[in-house]
Amino acid sequence: MAGERFTLKRRQRGIALRAHAREKAAGARSQGARHPAGWRAAYTLVREHRSDAGDEANAALSRDLGFMRMAIAKAREGIEKGQSPFGACVVKDGEVLACSHNVVWSSSDITAHAEVSAIRAACARLNAIDLSGSVIYSTCEPCPMCFAACHWARISRIVFGSRIEDAQGCGFSELTISNQRMKELGNSPVEVEGDFMREECVDLFREWSARAGRRAY
Amino acid sequence: MAGERFTLKRRQRGIALRAHAREKAAGARSQGARHPAGWRAAYTLVREHRSDAGDEANAALSRDLGFMRMAIAKAREGIEKGQSPFGACVVKDGEVLACSHNVVWSSSDITAHAEVSAIRAACARLNAIDLSGSVIYSTCEPCPMCFAACHWARISRIVFGSRIEDAQGCGFSELTISNQRMKELGNSPVEVEGDFMREECVDLFREWSARAGRRAY
Repeated sequence: MAGERFTLKRRQRGIALRAHAREKAAGARSQGARHPAGWRAAYTLVREHRSDAGDEANAALSRDLGFMRMAIAKAREGIEKGQSPFGACVVKDGEVLACSHNVVWSSSDITAHAEVSAIRAACARLNAIDLSGSVIYSTCEPCPMCFAACHWARISRIVFGSRIEDAQGCGFSELTISNQRMKELGNSPVEVEGDFMREECVDLFREWSARAGRRAY
Repeated sequence: MAGERFTLKRRQRGIALRAHAREKAAGARSQGARHPAGWRAAYTLVREHRSDAGDEANAALSRDLGFMRMAIAKAREGIEKGQSPFGACVVKDGEVLACSHNVVWSSSDITAHAEVSAIRAACARLNAIDLSGSVIYSTCEPCPMCFAACHWARISRIVFGSRIEDAQGCGFSELTISNQRMKELGNSPVEVEGDFMREECVDLFREWSARAGRRAY
């Protein structure tokens, strides 16, 4: 039953995101209003599916879109402050525990990636080291440091947008080991879902790359 | 030339540590004074080799032993405070930049492993995110989070004592991916040297395991 719901959820999400991508490709995106047509397509689909199982899948997709949008907004806030173009949001039972952008430069802390910063903040908020049942939404595939931090925190699910290779392409000295590989090699129970709102997340790199004085590390 | 020195250094270290292990096995270790015979053997060897190349190799070995001993002492301090049995020391140009034990429990921060804590402190001390040329001495093989933190910080060399499997054997939910595997998969330039003072570092787990109220995670 859970498997069936999951499959349906994946299918619905696939339809929504393909619709979104089609509208973007058709040039529906306009300057000054980010991806309105794409978002409208996704949310229209969410509203239009009204079967019981569909309701649940659509609600889950709607939540995922909303939380990833928060992570993207946070990453953009970081870019505007001269930080690196990464954002992450930790959510448990529908509540945002923490939403952080990368603060490596502003804190002079090489470990202060968006995911690690969000996990630390979520731990502090709950005064606990166990974030079981949480989902982390990350604009970019967590690097092995951040993936392992998710594992240690017992985060249940990682949803990411762009890929490690996208960050590497911008000059970040990534350890290019995918989350799927880390999960398999380390036998981690964390669920991993990539390429979610990938284009919007890749856009963050484009915006960052256009800024003078940007610094990769 | 550098290769030759390195080979000699490795050989000398091998002799010293084997001598140390032999003395331990012969029961030279007494309660209340930790490994005095072993240490004496190592340091006597360090004093006795007086060829030019030998001097350099012995000095390097002597430094490595001293810094790892600091990491072990720091881990022991953590155990006494109810923390997990891990210590790490970051050294640059012979100067200790930071020496930390794991503070996951006391800080309610799942990312506050000894290595990450030491790297953060070293960054703060230098007000820099680049620790190139540094060596980290860790009582246990850095987990993938800590290995990747070392990579990001551009630490040049990792020296560790016990292995990830030793920590896992004590109940820590490790991602069992060795540093060598991480280095190869991620194509990291960091130099890795394991099993250094391994027995002394495994002893930390034994001490921790004997304590009431210990908590793995």
